[in-house]
Amino acid sequence: MPEQEKTLSAGILIIGNEVLSGRTQDINIQFLATSLGDMGIRVREVRIVADIHDSVIGALNDLRKNYTYVFTTGGIGPTHDDITAECVARAFGVDLPVNEEARQILVNHYGADEVTEARLRMARIPQGATLIQNPISAAPGFRMENVFTMAGVPRIMQGMFDFVKLQLDHGTPMLSNTITCQLAESAIAIELEALQKKAPDVEIGSYPSYRQGVAGVSLVLRSINRDALKIATEQLFTLIRSKGVEPRSQALQVSPDNELLDSVA
Amino acid sequence: MPEQEKTLSAGILIIGNEVLSGRTQDINIQFLATSLGDMGIRVREVRIVADIHDSVIGALNDLRKNYTYVFTTGGIGPTHDDITAECVARAFGVDLPVNEEARQILVNHYGADEVTEARLRMARIPQGATLIQNPISAAPGFRMENVFTMAGVPRIMQGMFDFVKLQLDHGTPMLSNTITCQLAESAIAIELEALQKKAPDVEIGSYPSYRQGVAGVSLVLRSINRDALKIATEQLFTLIRSKGVEPRSQALQVSPDNELLDSVA
Repeated sequence: MPEQEKTLSAGILIIGNEVLSGRTQDINIQFLATSLGDMGIRVREVRIVADIHDSVIGALNDLRKNYTYVFTTGGIGPTHDDITAECVARAFGVDLPVNEEARQILVNHYGADEVTEARLRMARIPQGATLIQNPISAAPGFRMENVFTMAGVPRIMQGMFDFVKLQLDHGTPMLSNTITCQLAESAIAIELEALQKKAPDVEIGSYPSYRQGVAGVSLVLRSINRDALKIATEQLFTLIRSKGVEPRSQALQVSPDNELLDSVA
Repeated sequence: MPEQEKTLSAGILIIGNEVLSGRTQDINIQFLATSLGDMGIRVREVRIVADIHDSVIGALNDLRKNYTYVFTTGGIGPTHDDITAECVARAFGVDLPVNEEARQILVNHYGADEVTEARLRMARIPQGATLIQNPISAAPGFRMENVFTMAGVPRIMQGMFDFVKLQLDHGTPMLSNTITCQLAESAIAIELEALQKKAPDVEIGSYPSYRQGVAGVSLVLRSINRDALKIATEQLFTLIRSKGVEPRSQALQVSPDNELLDSVA
């Protein structure tokens, strides 16, 4: 019998002309998706928008209504193109004053004389938000209700996330099994669909690969229900073997029966 | 005097649980953003959604109304989790029959006997769409009005895009200059904002970096107006030098005056 399920969802909002222009390859999405997944929080949607007020505010309001948590990256530095704090304040309909705690953090880091007008921009925090520590470069992020606003530079974002994750609920962990085999997707597609229909609690993804001209497929089974995952995995092993091919278990969090597993490379 | 401007915009829709779970690092966004940018088509928004009909259809309808072109990647294979063709058909309110031209492509590639029920799924094309050739693995993508539906596997997507780009209008090319210097962003933030206000036709982005503990900044100036870009670049050179630091031109598409440029590393 499955345990009580706790479903937590997340949306990610990347604010960054530099990603939309192709200048920068985003790596924050994968970091957040993986880290959140480990906590049982499922990322359901990502949006990447330009540094334009209406675009950021619109996306933010959509995401914060639809998901348990929203994580934003980018646009919280000291320059004119850093508009995220302003957008969060406007999305929530609150003021954006200089936050005394944030100002003190900057004073401690830079020295009072070096907290210039430009740097003070980084202490403007939406009214009612709480700060997110920045262990790398001091200037804090902030949390406003279910929205966590972090830096865009990956190292800084990751440092902030260490503090963010202490504030997040944990959901029922998603368990996954990945199985690969040297078959074209189409060779098992019909039976795989039938298997998916019999296992509504398991999400089965099929990802083709072509290595040195040989078609292969990675099959990813994901579920919060350990028993359902085990059964679906066993059925998938049997399906693949019925095609005369030996499955390889790439990453098994839930093992099938020993008898099946022993023969796997 | 600037030439007549032709503004073309694009939205990208990534359909893929594997990106949202963090299993896969997306590289299609950057490829498309760069390739489209080179054609004067500006990517304005990206969405990544799960393999869920309502999510895909909702995002598709938002994007196709808002942008000149929409490019989707992922979900056009033969398995049950490949739902993109179905979603496009539903978003446009049209049927999804087996397309005879697409079926013939599969027959030519696999042989008639090997066009199984599963593979025939890949020949289901929204009514009224035209095919996009797939030089890698045959199964085509398709264009429905302003929406181009392509594979998710990067090599296949890129192969399809070679055909897609022949169908796209070219916009006024975006010119850009990138200048770096060893200054903290905050050291120039106020003057940079003033410079941005004087140059409404130039988009100035400021991207901090920390290399071996030394703060630096990359300043990216983008414009379709060559003269405006040249002037803003010259003003930025002057601004950086006024701080006692020598600017480095990383990537100049439009050169400032020789006098300024000669002294640049």
